[in-house]
Amino acid sequence: MTIALGEIATRFGCEIAGDPRIAIKSVAALSNASEGTISFFANTAHISALKSTGASAVILRRGDVDQCPVNALISSNPYLTYARVAELLHPDPVFDPGIHRSATIHETAVIHKTAHVAANVFIDADCIIDEGAYVGPGAVVGPRCHIGELSRILANVTVVQDVTIGKRSIVHPGAVIGSDGFGNAMSDSGWVKVRQIGGVKIGDDVEIGCNTTIDRGAIGDTIIENGVRLDNLIQIAHNVHIGEHTAMAGMTGIAGSAIIGKRCLFAGRAGSVGHVTICDDVIVSASSYISKDIKEPGVYTGSFPAEKDKIWKRKAARFRRIDDMVLRISELEKKRE
Amino acid sequence: MTIALGEIATRFGCEIAGDPRIAIKSVAALSNASEGTISFFANTAHISALKSTGASAVILRRGDVDQCPVNALISSNPYLTYARVAELLHPDPVFDPGIHRSATIHETAVIHKTAHVAANVFIDADCIIDEGAYVGPGAVVGPRCHIGELSRILANVTVVQDVTIGKRSIVHPGAVIGSDGFGNAMSDSGWVKVRQIGGVKIGDDVEIGCNTTIDRGAIGDTIIENGVRLDNLIQIAHNVHIGEHTAMAGMTGIAGSAIIGKRCLFAGRAGSVGHVTICDDVIVSASSYISKDIKEPGVYTGSFPAEKDKIWKRKAARFRRIDDMVLRISELEKKRE
Amino acid sequence: MTIALGEIATRFGCEIAGDPRIAIKSVAALSNASEGTISFFANTAHISALKSTGASAVILRRGDVDQCPVNALISSNPYLTYARVAELLHPDPVFDPGIHRSATIHETAVIHKTAHVAANVFIDADCIIDEGAYVGPGAVVGPRCHIGELSRILANVTVVQDVTIGKRSIVHPGAVIGSDGFGNAMSDSGWVKVRQIGGVKIGDDVEIGCNTTIDRGAIGDTIIENGVRLDNLIQIAHNVHIGEHTAMAGMTGIAGSAIIGKRCLFAGRAGSVGHVTICDDVIVSASSYISKDIKEPGVYTGSFPAEKDKIWKRKAARFRRIDDMVLRISELEKKRE
Repeated sequence: MTIALGEIATRFGCEIAGDPRIAIKSVAALSNASEGTISFFANTAHISALKSTGASAVILRRGDVDQCPVNALISSNPYLTYARVAELLHPDPVFDPGIHRSATIHETAVIHKTAHVAANVFIDADCIIDEGAYVGPGAVVGPRCHIGELSRILANVTVVQDVTIGKRSIVHPGAVIGSDGFGNAMSDSGWVKVRQIGGVKIGDDVEIGCNTTIDRGAIGDTIIENGVRLDNLIQIAHNVHIGEHTAMAGMTGIAGSAIIGKRCLFAGRAGSVGHVTICDDVIVSASSYISKDIKEPGVYTGSFPAEKDKIWKRKAARFRRIDDMVLRISELEKKRE
Repeated sequence: MTIALGEIATRFGCEIAGDPRIAIKSVAALSNASEGTISFFANTAHISALKSTGASAVILRRGDVDQCPVNALISSNPYLTYARVAELLHPDPVFDPGIHRSATIHETAVIHKTAHVAANVFIDADCIIDEGAYVGPGAVVGPRCHIGELSRILANVTVVQDVTIGKRSIVHPGAVIGSDGFGNAMSDSGWVKVRQIGGVKIGDDVEIGCNTTIDRGAIGDTIIENGVRLDNLIQIAHNVHIGEHTAMAGMTGIAGSAIIGKRCLFAGRAGSVGHVTICDDVIVSASSYISKDIKEPGVYTGSFPAEKDKIWKRKAARFRRIDDMVLRISELEKKRE
Repeated sequence: MTIALGEIATRFGCEIAGDPRIAIKSVAALSNASEGTISFFANTAHISALKSTGASAVILRRGDVDQCPVNALISSNPYLTYARVAELLHPDPVFDPGIHRSATIHETAVIHKTAHVAANVFIDADCIIDEGAYVGPGAVVGPRCHIGELSRILANVTVVQDVTIGKRSIVHPGAVIGSDGFGNAMSDSGWVKVRQIGGVKIGDDVEIGCNTTIDRGAIGDTIIENGVRLDNLIQIAHNVHIGEHTAMAGMTGIAGSAIIGKRCLFAGRAGSVGHVTICDDVIVSASSYISKDIKEPGVYTGSFPAEKDKIWKRKAARFRRIDDMVLRISELEKKRE
């Protein structure tokens, strides 16, 4: 798609500093842009890339216009405007409606005539696949699942059973949704499996990353509210409840029955133990985990970044003798008196 | 299935405080139960849910009967009894025997006539699928694998090669069992792959979570003994040996050749380095890893839960100067003398 | 395959201490070897296994020949020589060329006549599958992907789109390559997905573990150079660049736009935050993560191994009061003056 800069400006309510007639075909990074591309500048760390950019236009804040050697599209939130421009220039692929001849569909499943069911898909009993939904190659949708309008279940995903997915949600390849939670009761002769009989309810505009796993509830449902974003290789255990617009980066893990608020952010490999309640607007730092209820919004951290091994080992050795340090201080205080 | 409370009591050797004739159809959580359901009470934190429960019956300890507003099923281990009642009321789905027309089965594979092989399955040479076993849609079973009686390999699982799985075991969607371990020898021109020629031996009554990976041995087998429970997204490296009834929560990682005892518990994101031996009955806390042999049962921990970032950062800064603290203490001690 | 020890020695330029005529059929571990096998000894921890080995020959350093009770193959790097011998004795399985009748291939895809495309594969538009390449059962190769000569995409892998894989590379089951990176811009009404339009470029002789995920670039490509080794359940975010021969053990996570040097080693569950540059020859210890640019080769660590919970908890409590310790030291210093 090619579109004039002026039309982009009109569409997204931005001002232009430069020529509205130039043609834009694609987005690009500042440092690797060529004619016909539009880039964005939001972080002063990239100022030299801005100054030497080959892009035909750059989305940036009003205060940065003077630094921009090319046409500027002025936005109070350049990254958000960039997201919208990228969506316009690079729309989702369009899928032909229909069911691939190699797909196997249970006779009780209802597939909307505008939905696309790809090769080697298996859809089980009592499923509903709504208008414009997409089920990718190799995906398996188990019994009693509902895939909402325009949602996309990508390649090799498994939606196990009793899963409801809202509208416009995306499940990336390899994810598994609705599998049994980890429930075991110890008996004299070993573990007895605790039947998991709940489901999973996923809202609208949710995105679930590759190979992420979301278990169904033990009793009752695991719930992912509207607008939640989960990256790759995340584990969401049974009966977890994640509030609207919370985003979790790769490898985050949430243990069973944790209740996570709205608009929380979990950095990479963050997590939470089970059976805790975390309020809205909590940020958990990389490699840190929450161990108890959190009632105040803010940033929470509990990890040490790596440093030179020799230095770390010396400190760690000191830490192992921290008791001794405290004793020595007490001893000094006693003598002092 | 509907069953009288009295019959449940008889079947599991429990006493009843209440009416044995009431009909039970389903299990439910205390706080979300309706007529015809049975719940359990094992944790005093849920006492108010017990007092207001809508369940028709509750499984609980004798000492808690007085608190129970409805019929009680008395058990010394309510959670275990609950597990057994849930199993009775919510039995596994029954699968029709047979091989789906879209499955591809190697001519040398032997599939028992009572086994179920689902859509788009591929089963390779010299495999044996035993009585009542289930191979789910999209699953791949590579050469020389044996799936034991009543075991279930669920959707999109890959059993790579030379894998033996015992009876009544369950492998959840997306898991990969029997892939090459991570073996590399450095040469002048880069890594040389070290051929992995072992297999994986999995016992009876084992459960393996979604997207969990278990590598085959480099030489000799990786071994998962009877009754082991592995949650989702776990990594078990080559030649690991896991003892009976050990349970590992999500995201646990065990490095190569580690030997883990019986009845160990690994909390979420716990783990172990390779080539260590961990005795029976060891509990590893969340986000903690074992770095050397463990010879004494007990709980082992090495992680800090998150706290407010500002407070954590101040402490972490102090920790970075711990050397300095020790020096200052020594200095004070010297002056003291 | 059976081969004389003398021929192995000739092929790999090793000396023999013993009988060159003995027949070698297979590799084995020292402690579990029988006649006709060859093992290796490289770690003095296994000296008693060497002394009692049942192997017909052992690969070891010249200085260890005297300890060896059987025929010895002398090598300056026994593990590397072992890797090459194992490769010789246990060659990769040979696949018949051809496309399985159950595979679905887009009409614009070009599959070399010597390539093997297994059951239930789906290959999309504009793909190229080169000479001798292998695409395993259930694998999905999305649009515009190129699988190089002799590379192997194993069972249930998803190669999403715009992915180029070089020669002789292996992608293990369940891995997902080329999926959207985690890009989201916050708007007044929640997250807006930031279109990911880059691809993934993977070099020659790369190995990618089971259920590992490698995202495509947001703009521009995610790059994995020649000879890189990635173990299972690893997350490589968008626009990461990994230098030649870097190896990462299981569960490592690399956040977006991180640039990792050549010959780096990441131990299990290691990682890096995004937007940092790590120089060549850096080793990151188990469960440790890099938080800023690293300019000096060497070992970097930031984790504590688990110890007895009671002892750890006491130290952790001391750590929580580290501010107080510093105050008490300052107080003592003041009084001293």
